[in-house]
Amino acid sequence: MSLQHSKLTSVTPAPAEFPPPGTPDIEIARSVQPLSILLLAQQRFGLPGESLVPFGHYKAKLDMAYVDTSASAPRGKLVLVTAITPTPAGEGKTTTSVGLNDGFNRLGVRSSVCLREPSLGPCFGMKGGAAGGGRAQVIPMEDINLHFNGDFHAITCAHNLLASLIDNHIHWGNEAGLDPRHVSWRRVLDINDRSLRNMVCGLGGAPHGVPRETGFDITVSSEIMAILCLADGRADLKQRLGNIIIGRRADMAPVTVRDLGAEGSLTVLLKEALQPNLVQSLEHNPVFIHGGPFANIAHGCNSVTATRAALALNDVVVTEAGFGADLGAEKFIDIKCRHTGLRPDAAVVVCTIRALKMQGGVPRSKLAVPDLAALRDGAANLERHVRNLQQFGLTPVVCINRFPDDTEEEMALVQSISEELGVKAVPADHWATGGEGATELAQAVLEQMDEGTPDVKFLYEDSLPLADKIRTIATRIYHAGSVEFTTVAKRQLEEYESLGFGHLPVCIAKTQYSFSADSSIKGAPSGHMLPVREVRLAAGAGFVVAVCGDIMTMPGLPRRPAALDIALDDNGLVVGLT
Amino acid sequence: MSLQHSKLTSVTPAPAEFPPPGTPDIEIARSVQPLSILLLAQQRFGLPGESLVPFGHYKAKLDMAYVDTSASAPRGKLVLVTAITPTPAGEGKTTTSVGLNDGFNRLGVRSSVCLREPSLGPCFGMKGGAAGGGRAQVIPMEDINLHFNGDFHAITCAHNLLASLIDNHIHWGNEAGLDPRHVSWRRVLDINDRSLRNMVCGLGGAPHGVPRETGFDITVSSEIMAILCLADGRADLKQRLGNIIIGRRADMAPVTVRDLGAEGSLTVLLKEALQPNLVQSLEHNPVFIHGGPFANIAHGCNSVTATRAALALNDVVVTEAGFGADLGAEKFIDIKCRHTGLRPDAAVVVCTIRALKMQGGVPRSKLAVPDLAALRDGAANLERHVRNLQQFGLTPVVCINRFPDDTEEEMALVQSISEELGVKAVPADHWATGGEGATELAQAVLEQMDEGTPDVKFLYEDSLPLADKIRTIATRIYHAGSVEFTTVAKRQLEEYESLGFGHLPVCIAKTQYSFSADSSIKGAPSGHMLPVREVRLAAGAGFVVAVCGDIMTMPGLPRRPAALDIALDDNGLVVGLT
Repeated sequence: MSLQHSKLTSVTPAPAEFPPPGTPDIEIARSVQPLSILLLAQQRFGLPGESLVPFGHYKAKLDMAYVDTSASAPRGKLVLVTAITPTPAGEGKTTTSVGLNDGFNRLGVRSSVCLREPSLGPCFGMKGGAAGGGRAQVIPMEDINLHFNGDFHAITCAHNLLASLIDNHIHWGNEAGLDPRHVSWRRVLDINDRSLRNMVCGLGGAPHGVPRETGFDITVSSEIMAILCLADGRADLKQRLGNIIIGRRADMAPVTVRDLGAEGSLTVLLKEALQPNLVQSLEHNPVFIHGGPFANIAHGCNSVTATRAALALNDVVVTEAGFGADLGAEKFIDIKCRHTGLRPDAAVVVCTIRALKMQGGVPRSKLAVPDLAALRDGAANLERHVRNLQQFGLTPVVCINRFPDDTEEEMALVQSISEELGVKAVPADHWATGGEGATELAQAVLEQMDEGTPDVKFLYEDSLPLADKIRTIATRIYHAGSVEFTTVAKRQLEEYESLGFGHLPVCIAKTQYSFSADSSIKGAPSGHMLPVREVRLAAGAGFVVAVCGDIMTMPGLPRRPAALDIALDDNGLVVGLT
Repeated sequence: MSLQHSKLTSVTPAPAEFPPPGTPDIEIARSVQPLSILLLAQQRFGLPGESLVPFGHYKAKLDMAYVDTSASAPRGKLVLVTAITPTPAGEGKTTTSVGLNDGFNRLGVRSSVCLREPSLGPCFGMKGGAAGGGRAQVIPMEDINLHFNGDFHAITCAHNLLASLIDNHIHWGNEAGLDPRHVSWRRVLDINDRSLRNMVCGLGGAPHGVPRETGFDITVSSEIMAILCLADGRADLKQRLGNIIIGRRADMAPVTVRDLGAEGSLTVLLKEALQPNLVQSLEHNPVFIHGGPFANIAHGCNSVTATRAALALNDVVVTEAGFGADLGAEKFIDIKCRHTGLRPDAAVVVCTIRALKMQGGVPRSKLAVPDLAALRDGAANLERHVRNLQQFGLTPVVCINRFPDDTEEEMALVQSISEELGVKAVPADHWATGGEGATELAQAVLEQMDEGTPDVKFLYEDSLPLADKIRTIATRIYHAGSVEFTTVAKRQLEEYESLGFGHLPVCIAKTQYSFSADSSIKGAPSGHMLPVREVRLAAGAGFVVAVCGDIMTMPGLPRRPAALDIALDDNGLVVGLT
């Protein structure tokens, strides 16, 4: 591959002594002393201190002035990490993205990885943090999982200021003529709080506003989150914020943020949050973690500002998209790439032997038992995802993310199945051994990119009617036999077309656990029916959301939340955050 | 005054060219390029970079390890800045605190000022920012007014996580036996949002929680805010958080955060927020801005961690307390000092000629007209505050915060009235000229401190019954003739005594615009009745709040909110934030 930057000559080595296998992620993370982030940015990218906004010693934001400059800089190659259909067993997409980046750096290639920020809410519920795992992690882990540089809090704040301005507008005479029953803008918190899903606000009499039904969602589901991740600068951010439709008048005409005059304030609240965050892997390689939109009702990718800045600073940039390739890669290409002109130069499909066996019908309790027949059945899922990526013009590399109990026969089988598909499958062991375990994978991706720049094609043209866009995704990606729209959904699609939003891409919100809308159907189902319950318009983010099934936008806490086990120990270290 | 630190030899001078008089505050603020905050901390305090957590180049937090060490370090002198009864004309307490600190530094005294953080909510409503004014300001002004180092967002987050844990506890079986009608813990946002004052949450059926009445307050009114500002370290923070009473069982027995097991998580969310923030004045002198509890339902002072750290690093520390001396200074001494062992070594009472004339009955439109008779009448208010401070054992210095239209005769009158009271009154011109305008004031405070350490006395002993504590403040400070408790308030006081909270200090929540509970009564009224409507228990913060009149804990937005005028200009600078 031809490189625009010089090859790395000295890569800071991994620490000589890692904790033994079986050590919890958080202890591995704490065994490594991070480098000063200003030093790392200077050494790796030649960036002066003024180009960075430090947050403590190990985190920084790239200054917006630098980000603006980077938009026109020559770009490195973009490697999209996606996956087979996820299972609770986990396929390790983030871990692989981090490990692959460490692998590229070990090969002397200037590379960074761009990831999404974790939501704070689930940390106190069930899920725990999200910054990779094993020896392929990003540090400082606790800081990334809690309050990370204030981004999500800024989004929460902007979102709720807008909500207050809406209710205030109605309270003081409602000049815009908003129908209080048709205010679609809710409020958000970065907390799992089921009791706020449905509420009546404005109670207590006339001085306290106009009563109406509304509720809270979790911050990652905010349209402002999607906007922040698609905006390519402050002007674009303001433009998109102004376009948000907050509700309807009595005659159903849409009312926007611009109609209220609130886009300036929202932009001010988000000016720091728009700046990409720089941190590092355990092997001291640069990691951008920025933005975290839902992968169902939004596009599920990190920010455009981070991806662009990373591409200007590197020869290779690894990035991931949420869920499996049917949702994540499709949205990455049809939404993020369409909006920005970015194109992937390569793709990696992550799978595990265990997850493939689960796709082949093996129950969770027996995943460690070798089972070539089930693996072959489950590989139909991998095959479907590979063929889908080929439709987009990409020749993916399959990454077999190794588990200790995987057998050589199982590996060989996945490799031979991949070969039949015309793609290479490479085992990778970054979880256990760090970047060293992913150099073979990195090498395979470099070789694939040496084959030439792929001709990446969108799945559909802007001009296709919205309903046909949904049908196209359903049939070509999910292999559905039909799409059924509810009466409501049909009416909504017609309305959005008539309002002039027919050119937007569509974002499918459906279960990530199946190609179908039924999460229990594993493998590679065909001929199923995709039910479109309702269609939402995200006029600011710039897509139309087709809701296929129940989508939860405000999680609840479990009976025994993780919050009850999280505390500071006597040394001021966080315990209980996994 | 004997100094523990060496005298400052070179103080960075103010910039040679200030913008002309009449220039808006924000333009003055932007005319000064701040020093690197790490450099400032190193030069002024000899603090190494590891003792600081930078937030950008011009803001930092003191690392908790340093704050913990500072608790036992030798301490400088503490100067409390308080004021006469405030009027909409403004008396300039924050501006004077900043100017006085610049004045001390001009005299070669190592000094810092400790202020409260502004709330983000009102910036988008009516009030605008809060970081001093004229040439006595703190920079970077926008950063201090918006999201400042994430502190208030962390409090919002911790407060709402607790609320969610409470509703979740009820949802999953309510083992603690909380009565849903007696949950006193509400939710908070750092947004002015009247529509959230009263609401019914938990609607939508069984999967979405248990319906109950509740609402949101503004973040600064959170008990967690008061706790953060009174905690002297992480262990104390956790202890106080555990003590919060969140509601009652059916038998009215209190249920605490500790009963739910949530104090560990809340402490984790607040671990950075507990660290004091360091910024600088226009004259590059150190300013600590940390915490901002309400001055009515809470004690209205900056954090103990900031005050302690500043005292360890300086010979003099200037600090302010909210509202007039009847509320601010009383709470500073009877709550903050009582809880922490801190004591003021001197006090400054800020007044303006205009505000005194307003206290003397002059309407707002005629304040610029010289009026010695009205000034003499209004000075009764100053006299009352001075005598109150003398009751505490302090001999305050009166600061006449100059306005351009003040006359020499008016100045002389205030000075002679002060002399009769046994205190010195000094005109100060820091608003127009910066620290130079406050050196005479600073000199007067130093001379007062040379008279010896004051024997500061609390107004009442811990052992006095709660009702008698309220009566003591009412009669001795407000000069009320009587206190009337509602039946509810009487019952609450009895209950708090019986629950073992009778030893706590009381925090009076009443109008700041009068010594009485009627905001229209100016001057120095006597013999009035103080009505105590209800009494609240802040068991975590460690005080009992006597609510005397209507106290608004969630502001609304005005008809035309400032939010509609706030935006980023083409250079990325904030406009419309005043």
